[in-house]
Amino acid sequence: MTEPGIGEDAVRRMVATVSRDGEPDLVAVEEPLEIRVDGRPLAVTMRTPAHDEELALGFLYGEGLIDSPREAGLSEDLAANTIDVAGPLLRDPSTRNFYATSSCGVCGKGALEEVATLAPHVGAAGPIVDRALLETLPEGMHQPTFELTGGLHATGLFDTEGALLLVREDVGRHNAMDKVVGRALLDGMLPFRDRLLCVSGRLSFELVQKAAMAGAPVVVGVGAPSSLAIELAGDRGITLAGFARRGSVNIYTGADRVRG
Amino acid sequence: MTEPGIGEDAVRRMVATVSRDGEPDLVAVEEPLEIRVDGRPLAVTMRTPAHDEELALGFLYGEGLIDSPREAGLSEDLAANTIDVAGPLLRDPSTRNFYATSSCGVCGKGALEEVATLAPHVGAAGPIVDRALLETLPEGMHQPTFELTGGLHATGLFDTEGALLLVREDVGRHNAMDKVVGRALLDGMLPFRDRLLCVSGRLSFELVQKAAMAGAPVVVGVGAPSSLAIELAGDRGITLAGFARRGSVNIYTGADRVRG
Repeated sequence: MTEPGIGEDAVRRMVATVSRDGEPDLVAVEEPLEIRVDGRPLAVTMRTPAHDEELALGFLYGEGLIDSPREAGLSEDLAANTIDVAGPLLRDPSTRNFYATSSCGVCGKGALEEVATLAPHVGAAGPIVDRALLETLPEGMHQPTFELTGGLHATGLFDTEGALLLVREDVGRHNAMDKVVGRALLDGMLPFRDRLLCVSGRLSFELVQKAAMAGAPVVVGVGAPSSLAIELAGDRGITLAGFARRGSVNIYTGADRVRG
Repeated sequence: MTEPGIGEDAVRRMVATVSRDGEPDLVAVEEPLEIRVDGRPLAVTMRTPAHDEELALGFLYGEGLIDSPREAGLSEDLAANTIDVAGPLLRDPSTRNFYATSSCGVCGKGALEEVATLAPHVGAAGPIVDRALLETLPEGMHQPTFELTGGLHATGLFDTEGALLLVREDVGRHNAMDKVVGRALLDGMLPFRDRLLCVSGRLSFELVQKAAMAGAPVVVGVGAPSSLAIELAGDRGITLAGFARRGSVNIYTGADRVRG
């Protein structure tokens, strides 16, 4: 099992010193990362360094392209910002574009159907959790680089007692989720089944899509959900909660898992 | 000239009613939009509807693919969520990927160089503005759908007196910026020269890239900048300010344009 937090070595790579009003200040590092599979470029994401292997594996898992850990090698020239993952993939990534295969053209329904073909319905499974527990998840996420910079998103993984199992940070909210999923894949923790995911910001379609692919039954956000995020959560049987803070949380779907 | 705000008709399209804890509640609409050029699919973005023509034109302008307004037709079947923009483009969009053309592989330096080839240095041009004015820009952005839902990002365009000229909202922060740039293109307001841009969230590389392409001399954010956003702003001569709120703002680059 990995350590749940973000180690000091990682924090040093995730934070840069800049000049602000003539004084030194800390900001979050943002750099591109190219994800390759067997040497073939697949995607580029703007991300915060450290945990690149987790990011790459989590991204591929969320796209339905891998379902088990793979060897992944960072380029020896770290400035090159490339990571090469060993194939083969489960399917041709060029078919991933849901809009190209949807019979209704580009619409939310097509996007939902694409996820439905890849992510199982959570069904009646998953934990029953206290509403008060969901309200306290955001403050249970330790975000060391956010505390230094104010400039990163986070995703946290919790057990049903509210204990933090894993947290990752990134300038991109989707990258933070990918890192958590990638770490979980490496540690044999997927699908999540009786785990709770918490994100530091808003709940977009993309974030719920990644959570659905990872089999998460409960997804909590500090911010607001979008219409399509709610539709997807309802469609996949996920409990979706937003605006979580001590004393208040909104439940949009799957309220049968929430007690109190 | 267009109206600066977001009209009631647009707000109705941007907001959806959902069930929250058994009661009706309003959330931001999120739906895919496919941007085509002369019928050829170019990109899909998850966006909030309304202002799709502005979004498509602003996106293409920010990518350096157009430099003047174009005819743009939404599909008659609105559920299809496609918009077709008339070409030709200024260059082949397949060459856009900065990492493919950079001699140093994937790195922030390559990303900066790519923008530098397309966006002129602001130079010594641009307004001198009071620090206190920058601090008050965020509260000067009227965000009607955020007020209803808590779930959208915004970009605002201001003159040097702090008067709001234009504001757009979207679930995606980059889309809100694209909409402002697209509207400005349609109204002959580009490049921005003596205008101020303000964004409701954090300052990523991508947002500063779009601002640089639009010739904005001053970019203000409510949130934190990333390392690469600061590097790009410095490289292009842009004044970059973060954590803007009444009584406080951080200046990271171009402080010579800020008085007081």
